[in-house]
Amino acid sequence: MNYRYIFKIIGKILIILSFLLLLPTFVSLYYKENIMAFIYTIIISLVLGITLSSTKIKNINLYKKDGILITTLSWILISIIGALPFIISKSIPNVVDAIFETSSGFTTTGASILKDVEILPKSILFWRSFTHWIGGMGILIFVLAIIPTNNNSIHIAKAEMPGPFKDKISPKLNNTAKWLYFMYIILTFLEIIALFISKMPLFDSVLTSFATAGTGGFGIKNTSIAFYNNKSIEYIVSIFMLLFGINFNVYFYILIRKFKSAFKNEEMRVYLFIVFISTLLITLNILSISKNFEESFRLSLFQVSSIITTTGFSTANFDLWPQLSKTILLILMIIGACGGSTGGGIKISRLTIFIKKIYNDAINIVHPNAIKKVKFEENTISDTTVNNIGYYILLYFCLVFIFTLIVSLNNFDFETTFSSVIACMSNIGPGFNLVGPSMNYSMFSEISKVTLTLAMILGRLELYPILLLFPISLSKK
Amino acid sequence: MNYRYIFKIIGKILIILSFLLLLPTFVSLYYKENIMAFIYTIIISLVLGITLSSTKIKNINLYKKDGILITTLSWILISIIGALPFIISKSIPNVVDAIFETSSGFTTTGASILKDVEILPKSILFWRSFTHWIGGMGILIFVLAIIPTNNNSIHIAKAEMPGPFKDKISPKLNNTAKWLYFMYIILTFLEIIALFISKMPLFDSVLTSFATAGTGGFGIKNTSIAFYNNKSIEYIVSIFMLLFGINFNVYFYILIRKFKSAFKNEEMRVYLFIVFISTLLITLNILSISKNFEESFRLSLFQVSSIITTTGFSTANFDLWPQLSKTILLILMIIGACGGSTGGGIKISRLTIFIKKIYNDAINIVHPNAIKKVKFEENTISDTTVNNIGYYILLYFCLVFIFTLIVSLNNFDFETTFSSVIACMSNIGPGFNLVGPSMNYSMFSEISKVTLTLAMILGRLELYPILLLFPISLSKK
Repeated sequence: MNYRYIFKIIGKILIILSFLLLLPTFVSLYYKENIMAFIYTIIISLVLGITLSSTKIKNINLYKKDGILITTLSWILISIIGALPFIISKSIPNVVDAIFETSSGFTTTGASILKDVEILPKSILFWRSFTHWIGGMGILIFVLAIIPTNNNSIHIAKAEMPGPFKDKISPKLNNTAKWLYFMYIILTFLEIIALFISKMPLFDSVLTSFATAGTGGFGIKNTSIAFYNNKSIEYIVSIFMLLFGINFNVYFYILIRKFKSAFKNEEMRVYLFIVFISTLLITLNILSISKNFEESFRLSLFQVSSIITTTGFSTANFDLWPQLSKTILLILMIIGACGGSTGGGIKISRLTIFIKKIYNDAINIVHPNAIKKVKFEENTISDTTVNNIGYYILLYFCLVFIFTLIVSLNNFDFETTFSSVIACMSNIGPGFNLVGPSMNYSMFSEISKVTLTLAMILGRLELYPILLLFPISLSKK
Repeated sequence: MNYRYIFKIIGKILIILSFLLLLPTFVSLYYKENIMAFIYTIIISLVLGITLSSTKIKNINLYKKDGILITTLSWILISIIGALPFIISKSIPNVVDAIFETSSGFTTTGASILKDVEILPKSILFWRSFTHWIGGMGILIFVLAIIPTNNNSIHIAKAEMPGPFKDKISPKLNNTAKWLYFMYIILTFLEIIALFISKMPLFDSVLTSFATAGTGGFGIKNTSIAFYNNKSIEYIVSIFMLLFGINFNVYFYILIRKFKSAFKNEEMRVYLFIVFISTLLITLNILSISKNFEESFRLSLFQVSSIITTTGFSTANFDLWPQLSKTILLILMIIGACGGSTGGGIKISRLTIFIKKIYNDAINIVHPNAIKKVKFEENTISDTTVNNIGYYILLYFCLVFIFTLIVSLNNFDFETTFSSVIACMSNIGPGFNLVGPSMNYSMFSEISKVTLTLAMILGRLELYPILLLFPISLSKK
């Protein structure tokens, strides 16, 4: 382990964090709120950051395990330091609650322990939603975008980037990272403008766009997007949620005017197909409890987009919907969005490759000579990749079961227990029953809150930190 | 497809079935009940059987797909013909219900649509429990035990035998099959004697032993084993459930006096370890709602044994237990018993190999040069086997989700819907809430009942019939 280098990078991240904290400080000044909560946090973050980053490094080699440790430690640390404004301002006085809320923000889960968000100061609300925006694209990617990197940094990026194809990350990392952030900012601005035109107040437009962009889902009203009671807003948010759930490669192709490659993206097409089918089925299923077809379609589209992209906004209490609709939503929770997007879950690409593999395997059993390789996005997928995806999905379910066991100590019903774990692991936010869209996570015990916080971070980092549990010698790769 | 040969074998199975039906007929005569329901069924089964088995065969080659088709068709057909006594005697007048109950019997699920079993004629009760005993070891294995076989029969046995190591079946199939049935009969007799000594009426002892042996779980009292209110009976049934959940290879080793090999069986040791831990946790978890430690331990042991072996007997309404205990039971439902036993579920061997594989994979990611092979029962497991196990588990969950979607059309709560599918796929019987141990499956719609019947057969045949959905050319192997 290259601890010195690890400390140095974590120090840099904390310095960046203290700069990012300036934004809510300005908001605080503008609305004439108490700025001290942010000032104290900035000082703590900056001092700690400068101390750590001044570590003298002896060698610049980073191994895989170092990369994983940096990512894991960074995410835990930013969740703790990011929680300070909530604690100091007494918006969330309990430390466990505040860390839960912050890690829910950074991991873009959007699960909240707050019963009433509308009483919070505007600057605190801003910081809460801004954590979504930072966490959506990844804070380490952000760091990579602005600091000079060497080839070693690839291990950090791999641990933080979503999706199964981490090998494609170019060695010119800070270029890639810059492009990603550029597209991320453009899309966020487009949503702010669209929402503002639809008569959402500017402050709300900005915060809603932050939460959409990161596919986070923190609402700034107790009734989430339903508060505005505005069809255009609902359609705009639906569409932008879907857009942020698409692999960012597609936007890159559009940017460099390769429209054909963009349109051909297999993952995007499967994703849109699933959205289409789910929206259709739920529209029909809730038709009898809706005013008309348009309402039924609108509510269905919004909730499907919100759940598959793992955002977690709501315009309807889907917990009261028929069981078929609820089951579809539960399955979407597990599937998640496209790899290379800001969404969570298992990811469409993994699912597609896995189903193709099952199909090939079945054919192989009946017809052993017909050995076929799995193809995805027009490439042949190596057996190792396919198997890793299989075991990723299985590990995901194993962890879901282990966390469900721990959370079940709270003795809530199975639906609450199981869906709270899925909603946190997949970074969605709302689940069913006691954690339904109109509820919150405040009633869980501290053990459960810590477990769910862990689940959120593991889900966001795609289970990578689990590897740290294997105490073996350093590897060269 | 060698349809002629397929028809011939199915014909033979129906002839055997008509002989097996003689047993409840004798019971019917003994208790002076109406024997006509059985007589009609025997005639139908015999006539159909003789007609089919008189098919002239042109070639004796059976391909893999033929084997799968034979097994699938046989199980569907015996579920339909086996349902006739229920329909003709008007014990279960509805056809869908009767087929559900019969396939629940043969697949050793033990899920019942009957609200009151105590009003049934004794001969009908006998047939109902006897289906468990037949289905436990497999009707095709039974056929193989008594008819001369050739090498082609291996494809039939593979589709019906539980567990991942189907390749070990010796080519001298009818020898293996005879040994299996011999041990099965011995163990069943031991249980009958033990129960009878503990003052259970003889008729009840026989039927309870049938249901234990097949790990089926049909109760002959509305309150299942709790009815007898007898501690010895509860402990005896617990122990025999556990015994029937062990890989029968272990008994074979004991029979040939290789005690060391028997004791070394890795799958058995993992199985007993899981039973131990689960019993311990649940004992502590339900201590506060029990009279004393002994009761808590006894109820815990019984329910754990019943669920992990997928039997489904009950001595307590575990649906009222704390959520931690319920979650442990749900996980045991999915795990299931050992391969090569009469129990269902995913099987301990698959789980063990899969966890070892995850562990190795994790080490490989951190330390790429440390390529290790998965070992199980002291053998190195080939990558193909390991991957097939991975995809088996994933396919299992995919099917669970698809069936849950269909059953959710009934609009029951998630716990009921999800646990009913798991309980049927894993051939357990009771689930939670509306399908809890004190409830039954009568309230489901016919679509759900058909779906769950399909789930039971797919679960019993370890998803093999799914392969028939792939309409490709014949293969040579």
